[in-house]
Amino acid sequence: MNRTAAAWVDTPAAVPSEEPLGRLGEVCARRGVPELAVRLLDLRDWIAAEMQWFEAELSRLPRGSSMVQRSAHHLLDLGGKHLRPVCVALAAKLGTGFGEAARDCAVAVELIHNASLLHDDVIDLGSQRRGVTAARAVYGNAASVVAGNWLLVTALERVDRTGLPGIVGRTLETIGEMIVGETIQLENRGRLDPSRGDYFRVIRGKTAALFRWALFNGGVAGGLARRECLALERYGSHLGVAFQLVDDLLDYTGDARRTGKPLFADLREGKVTYPLLLALERDASLRPLAAEILAGAADATSPAGLGDRVRDALVASGSVRDCRTLAVKRARAAIACLEPIADGPGREALVALAEAIVHRES
Amino acid sequence: MNRTAAAWVDTPAAVPSEEPLGRLGEVCARRGVPELAVRLLDLRDWIAAEMQWFEAELSRLPRGSSMVQRSAHHLLDLGGKHLRPVCVALAAKLGTGFGEAARDCAVAVELIHNASLLHDDVIDLGSQRRGVTAARAVYGNAASVVAGNWLLVTALERVDRTGLPGIVGRTLETIGEMIVGETIQLENRGRLDPSRGDYFRVIRGKTAALFRWALFNGGVAGGLARRECLALERYGSHLGVAFQLVDDLLDYTGDARRTGKPLFADLREGKVTYPLLLALERDASLRPLAAEILAGAADATSPAGLGDRVRDALVASGSVRDCRTLAVKRARAAIACLEPIADGPGREALVALAEAIVHRES
Repeated sequence: MNRTAAAWVDTPAAVPSEEPLGRLGEVCARRGVPELAVRLLDLRDWIAAEMQWFEAELSRLPRGSSMVQRSAHHLLDLGGKHLRPVCVALAAKLGTGFGEAARDCAVAVELIHNASLLHDDVIDLGSQRRGVTAARAVYGNAASVVAGNWLLVTALERVDRTGLPGIVGRTLETIGEMIVGETIQLENRGRLDPSRGDYFRVIRGKTAALFRWALFNGGVAGGLARRECLALERYGSHLGVAFQLVDDLLDYTGDARRTGKPLFADLREGKVTYPLLLALERDASLRPLAAEILAGAADATSPAGLGDRVRDALVASGSVRDCRTLAVKRARAAIACLEPIADGPGREALVALAEAIVHRES
Repeated sequence: MNRTAAAWVDTPAAVPSEEPLGRLGEVCARRGVPELAVRLLDLRDWIAAEMQWFEAELSRLPRGSSMVQRSAHHLLDLGGKHLRPVCVALAAKLGTGFGEAARDCAVAVELIHNASLLHDDVIDLGSQRRGVTAARAVYGNAASVVAGNWLLVTALERVDRTGLPGIVGRTLETIGEMIVGETIQLENRGRLDPSRGDYFRVIRGKTAALFRWALFNGGVAGGLARRECLALERYGSHLGVAFQLVDDLLDYTGDARRTGKPLFADLREGKVTYPLLLALERDASLRPLAAEILAGAADATSPAGLGDRVRDALVASGSVRDCRTLAVKRARAAIACLEPIADGPGREALVALAEAIVHRES
């Protein structure tokens, strides 16, 4: 904690960082929280060696010429934020460190995440992902279905070989929660009035479950006491919800060049997320507008101006502000869960991560 | 072995059997192998209690109103042949019997099989399965992708809870082989000239791998010696290849009312299987005809008369006969693998199964 904010503030975006924690630091500096930016720099340094190993290992995944493997690498090679492996590394380093089991967990969690993205894009007929054409639109739905299965099985092989007690069962349970989330989302597709309960069930399953898995099993791999692992698990759950709330907000208020996805993609794919759900509760006049976008969901090019009008209404109704407030609240709840974790750079890193996650723009 | 063939021969198809081994027995009786029909009756009785438990257990899988669960049950409720769980039960009964671990293996193998069918129909845009509209055509591709994932995870949970040493790893390896088979098939889609090597790699992965799994792990669950399990594994591998050769033959020469799939579906889905592959090697004049069907693959209703002409050419070239001969050879090779298995009703059942599998019509 002996850096100054100058490291970021002097060169806010002159040389945009290639690396997700770096990008997040730049955003924090730009947004007037340079002190947090400095702590993210510490976080990045704290797990730099671990993440370097991780990137190298991920790139060693078999590459063949088949459409299935090209489909998987199309997505993997774009990188993404790698926040789930970051969580594994941070949890493991609270204990004995990023040993063999933790490494396998880090690779596994990223592969499970990417498997779900490949299948999600088939399910939602998504066209863009991480700033480029989605794998399914390049190599076809069939290749993406098989590629998702391939990554899932590869992930489970990594999990199995850790030999950590009960980890296979926990992983299957987590994937089961992701499937429940996807199932509810699919049931509500095209519906203007999903319940808040359903919304939170979806994001707990689709997003929070895997963050929770990363933190709990990272802790187990690092030899932490059960009490600490359970605390990390709760932290992960709140962190995942905060993360997804911001994600859903960015779909309306973000910059497509940063998020890598077209704006209003959720609504066009038939998904009513929290910001809109709040706004619809407050402003009934929004319904026909949202309904029009939902109705044109099949045609991605349809309602260019409509999205902007929905966004303006979200801002006017205060739901953008309230969604962000809720994300901040969940990030704070995450931090509160860290009480059983001993002070030190590892704990500070987890605190910084939770604080920063609500500032992300990509 | 103290029955007479009369039990079948007297009422060959007056009351068609609802149950796959019964149907297979009827076919054998009709085809002039009543002695084999009698042995199948013995086989059926030998595992009647086990299969009754299995059917009941399968029907207890959670049923919700979601499209995902309805999609899965749409397929599961149609039954199918349940040959893979039959293999688990037969292998386990060579040892200590159909105990808890064997039961979980039997359910798991059927769920993995059904998961792969759900995904296959999405991949191949299949429209018919088990005599009715395919799940994906009723509930949509999205629901079938998620339903396949659900069945896969449920299967792996069953596998994990058996606690048999190394079984999770073996299962993931098997699913990995299925994925390799699917990958090669996808690469060759629409190609008139896949190699024989590729064809056999595909069927070893997509079909034989799971039969092999069923027999090996059934044996392990039944407490057999490693030598016996390995013998069963080899038996399963040959059995699976024989099974698939007949399957591919039935696509050209079968009765759609019995197979539950439209004729010539493979070719229309862009897949050149062994019977056609042989015929193309022998009769170059077939190429334009096959190419025409492949080209119209997207439009399932297109070439009504063309399929019949391809079938006639397959018969004329002798490739139907030679494909069946190869299936018989692989069934005999399967039986030869049973040498380390002690004589008794269990072994006789496995012999009968291998002999009968080449006679199947559905």
